Amino acid sequence: MASRALILFAHGARSAGWAEPFERLRDMTAARVDDCEVSLAFLELMAPSLPDEVAAMAARGITRISIVPVFLGLGGHLQRDLPALVERLRTQHPQLSIDVAGPVGEDAGVLAAMADYCVTSLS
Amino acid sequence: MASRALILFAHGARSAGWAEPFERLRDMTAARVDDCEVSLAFLELMAPSLPDEVAAMAARGITRISIVPVFLGLGGHLQRDLPALVERLRTQHPQLSIDVAGPVGEDAGVLAAMADYCVTSLS
Repeated sequence: MASRALILFAHGARSAGWAEPFERLRDMTAARVDDCEVSLAFLELMAPSLPDEVAAMAARGITRISIVPVFLGLGGHLQRDLPALVERLRTQHPQLSIDVAGPVGEDAGVLAAMADYCVTSLS
Repeated sequence: MASRALILFAHGARSAGWAEPFERLRDMTAARVDDCEVSLAFLELMAPSLPDEVAAMAARGITRISIVPVFLGLGGHLQRDLPALVERLRTQHPQLSIDVAGPVGEDAGVLAAMADYCVTSLS
């Protein structure tokens, strides 16, 4: 069993269909990594929450968790809500190593792909 | 002067820094298109709003506007708010041609770039 996990952390929304590209992203990522669980967790409106997902992982022996915020920009959710959640999780699960990446939307490769899409939308 | 424009439509947030990757995306896209203005407009919390941006464009002779939603998923904002805004804009500016693309986050190239970022975050 993997002892490592990657959690794609997304906002959540009322429309069930909203999560569809995030589910695709989870599956695409999972297909490319070995010995690492890949799952989704949400800030609000959708399940599982980040604390529930981390607790379930800790209970089954995961020791190292990387969180990638699937957000476009660095707003209050990533500047305040996520750090507060992670601080509580580190206190609750001191045996876990938890690291947090920057938001996907600030990655140069993601921005380049979005620019490609914008340019293509004009043709 | 360009008669065509591309509007990158984003959610908006309270943190001024949130818009930074969207501004980079606007500049990267603008550098790659000819005879087309590229600008940002926001649903809420940031200016300009989409109606204000479209009205300003119409006033200076833009005749054709493409809107690209810089959103990750297709939630209520894109299923209800944006179509309602666009319907009003078409009524208010009947001389304008306005088309709306799918959200950037559902594009295969953008998803692939996000998966690359997720995989890289593990190393």
